[in-house]
Amino acid sequence: MTPTQDNLDTLAEFALALAETGGEIAKQWFRTEYTIDLKKDKSPVTIADRTVEDELRKKILAAYPTHGILGEEYGQDKADAEYVWVIDPIDGTRSFITGSPLWGTLVALLHRGQPIVGVVAMPILQERWLGVANKGSWFSIGGQHRKACTVSRCTRLEQAKFYTTSMRYFDSNEQPAIQTLTDTVQTANFGGDCYIYGLLAAGYIDLVVESQLHPFDYLSLIPIINEAGGTITDWDNQPLSMHSTGKIIAAATPELHRQTLELLHSRM
Amino acid sequence: MTPTQDNLDTLAEFALALAETGGEIAKQWFRTEYTIDLKKDKSPVTIADRTVEDELRKKILAAYPTHGILGEEYGQDKADAEYVWVIDPIDGTRSFITGSPLWGTLVALLHRGQPIVGVVAMPILQERWLGVANKGSWFSIGGQHRKACTVSRCTRLEQAKFYTTSMRYFDSNEQPAIQTLTDTVQTANFGGDCYIYGLLAAGYIDLVVESQLHPFDYLSLIPIINEAGGTITDWDNQPLSMHSTGKIIAAATPELHRQTLELLHSRM
Repeated sequence: MTPTQDNLDTLAEFALALAETGGEIAKQWFRTEYTIDLKKDKSPVTIADRTVEDELRKKILAAYPTHGILGEEYGQDKADAEYVWVIDPIDGTRSFITGSPLWGTLVALLHRGQPIVGVVAMPILQERWLGVANKGSWFSIGGQHRKACTVSRCTRLEQAKFYTTSMRYFDSNEQPAIQTLTDTVQTANFGGDCYIYGLLAAGYIDLVVESQLHPFDYLSLIPIINEAGGTITDWDNQPLSMHSTGKIIAAATPELHRQTLELLHSRM
Repeated sequence: MTPTQDNLDTLAEFALALAETGGEIAKQWFRTEYTIDLKKDKSPVTIADRTVEDELRKKILAAYPTHGILGEEYGQDKADAEYVWVIDPIDGTRSFITGSPLWGTLVALLHRGQPIVGVVAMPILQERWLGVANKGSWFSIGGQHRKACTVSRCTRLEQAKFYTTSMRYFDSNEQPAIQTLTDTVQTANFGGDCYIYGLLAAGYIDLVVESQLHPFDYLSLIPIINEAGGTITDWDNQPLSMHSTGKIIAAATPELHRQTLELLHSRM
């Protein structure tokens, strides 16, 4: 059953509340002492990541017991349900553990595999993005009035403000293409994780290209970018889903998206 | 004449006020529309950089007409004076022009070439560092009480949290060494400019290595890092001055500093 308008509003508010709650919990550990564990892929994880996800899973189960859940730390539950919540308790754990405020709590809601709601909450910066399919994308600071997001009108790579989190997330096949891209754009910046997609939706930057992302990293970004007028796909110009490769292009305009695809393919 | 204790306090408060004023002026342009010009070295500059520096130079001239001034945008004036103020109106202009809060206003005061006061003010984050030679290094958030800074006790590269602003600031001779360094440390993060030295002084990270920095980028950092117990030199283990090469190592402990020097030299 496709969600009704009323139902969608309720789900979006619930997603927002989840992300806000998660961020508030995580903040309690920010810049304190705790143990940093390394996961199988060598990425760091802490008690903050685990506690946030545990709390959000409980809240989802209490409110929507038939819905599925996928989380970064505790895996999936009822992944074939009509509605599936996707949680990244702390996106940018490397920022979190180094005292930098560029980390966020991400929540997405999928309906039959399609992301219909996405939230990026930046607890320290008090900035927040919400995207709802066919309704819009909004940005708010410090709990103020939500402002509709619109991407920039940049149509040329040479004028684009480009971000990627780290060159280290590209393998040796991909790096030459990314190197050419950073040489081509107006400005290339590094760091940021989920935050840079928010900057793109809000019109402050024009292009993000990344690799090795997981579904919990990118699913929440899709309604935010799309509803702001941007384009987000994989490197083969395919829409993103739970089963994508994790190679992401997010661009302000179709022209910029096409030029980026062409550049990447010409160098790989 | 060496500054007296009272005089040094007054100069430090003046430096703080300068950086705060500069940041408040710059904020007026943050996330607004303005022209971005490219300087000779292709780095971006805006009306915000120029206006802040112009205002701060006027304030220095009014308060201390015999002092010298070096600024990023308008060069030097009385550079051989006993006291010289060094200003970077917006450190992290690439962050500023992309709507990211990781930019700061930097003020240093040199006495006979030695940095005796340094301020890093992060206007959007409302975080601020002050270092005063032989007195201490302090960190404050949101104008709250100043907290004394102490670096971490990390003594092993393999356990170090490392930051550098961008791999693109290293030339082809330096990049293999930095690549090895990023493969060796516990976590390697990118982005941040002046902010990452503040994170180091506050004990949240352990190591910063950079290249191609200018005196207005690094002079303010010296009292902040040194007085927090850290070590900051060039890549040849020499103290930094107005005439350094712009290759910087800032480390929490002497052990980490020595291991970093050894690694860099073994790979170059």
